[in-house]
Amino acid sequence: MPEHIVRSYEEDLKRLRDMVARMGGLAEQQVADATTALTRRDSELAAEVVKRDAQLDQLEREIEAFCVRLLALRQPMASDLRFIVATMKISHDLERIGDYARNGAKRAIVLATLPVIGSLNGFARMARLVQENLTAAIDALVQDDAEAAARVWGADEPVDDIYNGIFRELLTHMMEDPRNITGATHLLFIAKNLERIGDHATNIAETVHYAVRGDSLPEDRPKSDSSAFAVVRPPEA
Amino acid sequence: MPEHIVRSYEEDLKRLRDMVARMGGLAEQQVADATTALTRRDSELAAEVVKRDAQLDQLEREIEAFCVRLLALRQPMASDLRFIVATMKISHDLERIGDYARNGAKRAIVLATLPVIGSLNGFARMARLVQENLTAAIDALVQDDAEAAARVWGADEPVDDIYNGIFRELLTHMMEDPRNITGATHLLFIAKNLERIGDHATNIAETVHYAVRGDSLPEDRPKSDSSAFAVVRPPEA
Repeated sequence: MPEHIVRSYEEDLKRLRDMVARMGGLAEQQVADATTALTRRDSELAAEVVKRDAQLDQLEREIEAFCVRLLALRQPMASDLRFIVATMKISHDLERIGDYARNGAKRAIVLATLPVIGSLNGFARMARLVQENLTAAIDALVQDDAEAAARVWGADEPVDDIYNGIFRELLTHMMEDPRNITGATHLLFIAKNLERIGDHATNIAETVHYAVRGDSLPEDRPKSDSSAFAVVRPPEA
Repeated sequence: MPEHIVRSYEEDLKRLRDMVARMGGLAEQQVADATTALTRRDSELAAEVVKRDAQLDQLEREIEAFCVRLLALRQPMASDLRFIVATMKISHDLERIGDYARNGAKRAIVLATLPVIGSLNGFARMARLVQENLTAAIDALVQDDAEAAARVWGADEPVDDIYNGIFRELLTHMMEDPRNITGATHLLFIAKNLERIGDHATNIAETVHYAVRGDSLPEDRPKSDSSAFAVVRPPEA
């Protein structure tokens, strides 16, 4: 094969890596800004997050189209093939993360018009953790680092723990005062969104591990979201 | 190319189609059973749904591995390539649908121990609509029918409308009696899960359209979930 074709294939793969890294950076920014908009009751920032989401949708489409072209033209084998399939999956996870951030931002706009309910520290902590996991997962992809990916994959438990705490706290606020119910419901969905963003960061780490090593992590990762089974009772009247 | 190789490639594609159809059938069953478990307060059926979800996870892994093998060995072009990429995406949507059904089933187990809250007719209607869309989307894939796929893609609006109604009704129940809050919260998440299942059926239809035609549907589909902006106020004391 002439050298310029070989080089161009390498360049294609590098370009794909750059596209995913850029999309990862934008997704992180969206999560950070949606959370800031919530905690500072900043509806303008929230509206920006809602608007900016279209960029993530566009990037996912570009990455998928680029991958399909690479598959057709380059007929990649082994680790290159795994890498291309992985980037398609990861761009989809990032697009979903963007959707959750956008949904949270929409709710932040409503919440800024409602009375304050309790502290939002748990949300800020949860957002920080999922952003760290997301950054680490994307770094692992960019650096072909399977061990780093495996570490992220096992790091989601504290996120689930904070989520379980927020869930119980919000239900208690609802029981104390019915005027909290609408706001607390939006906060419940935002907390759930952050928990789902954490799951997607874990998925990305799992996909990176597969792309680098060619084998899968165990089926069941450590997981401690128990909120589906939660029962919170109102205080005795 | 010798004829037996050509035939075997056709057989591979047929096998892939069968795998996705089987996965689609199982996902529909999970949504139906999770909803029956909810409306009949049947915890045994709910526990079966939770257990059966592993089959969907397994099918997704098998489909992805089979697709990667096809990409490596057959180096497919044009419509075959699109079909293979589409089945990977669709199997992921079906796996997510399974996760939502499992989550709903877990919540149904808790709800069976709590007081009844209002009517669950809206849930049954929503589940029926999303199942119909899911069946139609998978049929469109099996029959290579882009028009049928486009019809499913535009059919999600009534699902969103029922969801918006359920959201407001549940918040009202919460405001009327704090003892409804835990149960109504679980029901809110189940309704949201059904709405998300509807979104995934729409995604599948979009992917089928792309696989058959090679071009995309418009970016923004008709969508009327306005619950992220909803404010429900308690009755005046």
